[in-house]
Amino acid sequence: MSKCIFCKIANGQMPAHIRYEDDEVVAFDDINPKAPFHVLIVPKKHLKNLNDTAKIDQDLLGHLLLIAQKVAEEAKIADNGYKIVINNGKESGQLVDHLHLHLLGGKLLARMAV
Amino acid sequence: MSKCIFCKIANGQMPAHIRYEDDEVVAFDDINPKAPFHVLIVPKKHLKNLNDTAKIDQDLLGHLLLIAQKVAEEAKIADNGYKIVINNGKESGQLVDHLHLHLLGGKLLARMAV
Repeated sequence: MSKCIFCKIANGQMPAHIRYEDDEVVAFDDINPKAPFHVLIVPKKHLKNLNDTAKIDQDLLGHLLLIAQKVAEEAKIADNGYKIVINNGKESGQLVDHLHLHLLGGKLLARMAV
Repeated sequence: MSKCIFCKIANGQMPAHIRYEDDEVVAFDDINPKAPFHVLIVPKKHLKNLNDTAKIDQDLLGHLLLIAQKVAEEAKIADNGYKIVINNGKESGQLVDHLHLHLLGGKLLARMAV
């Protein structure tokens, strides 16, 4: 059985505040939010980060971005604005070795990095 | 003729330090870098930001992320780590109204936002 916490959330073994779910993707609140709205968009397939993806994952990667947009719209932060951040590898700040998109919004984010 | 500066770079009307180009995507150095390595990955199709995308753009969105990974690998920053940031809308810090992915690397980025 996987020890990956995002795999456990994806298969229901670990609780989370789920915002969206389908066969390929789950989106849930970050437990340590860095903004008023901070959701993680996670593929159910275990991929370590973008370095672990290939052409076969193109549809899934596009789907992750479309779901991020959908979650932002449903949370009513899409018009004001939101950031997507994907950390890959140890110098990036990636804390969980399962590909995830941070969706951040709900306040002025312009000065957070780029 | 488009006044969009990223459209102008994409169609060769405006110079940039091009890192990668194909029929759908162009990647070039940010002129105001926020990290030692700071490249923008831009679709040639004019999309304002993620709010302007739909299911028809899924392949293109996946392609943008795969190209980001490829550019990171070619720049030899993939193993150490890199961030992808996509700003959408006025509260996010989006400065050019043409969808673009920031690819940031080359130093410890962990404390830059999430």
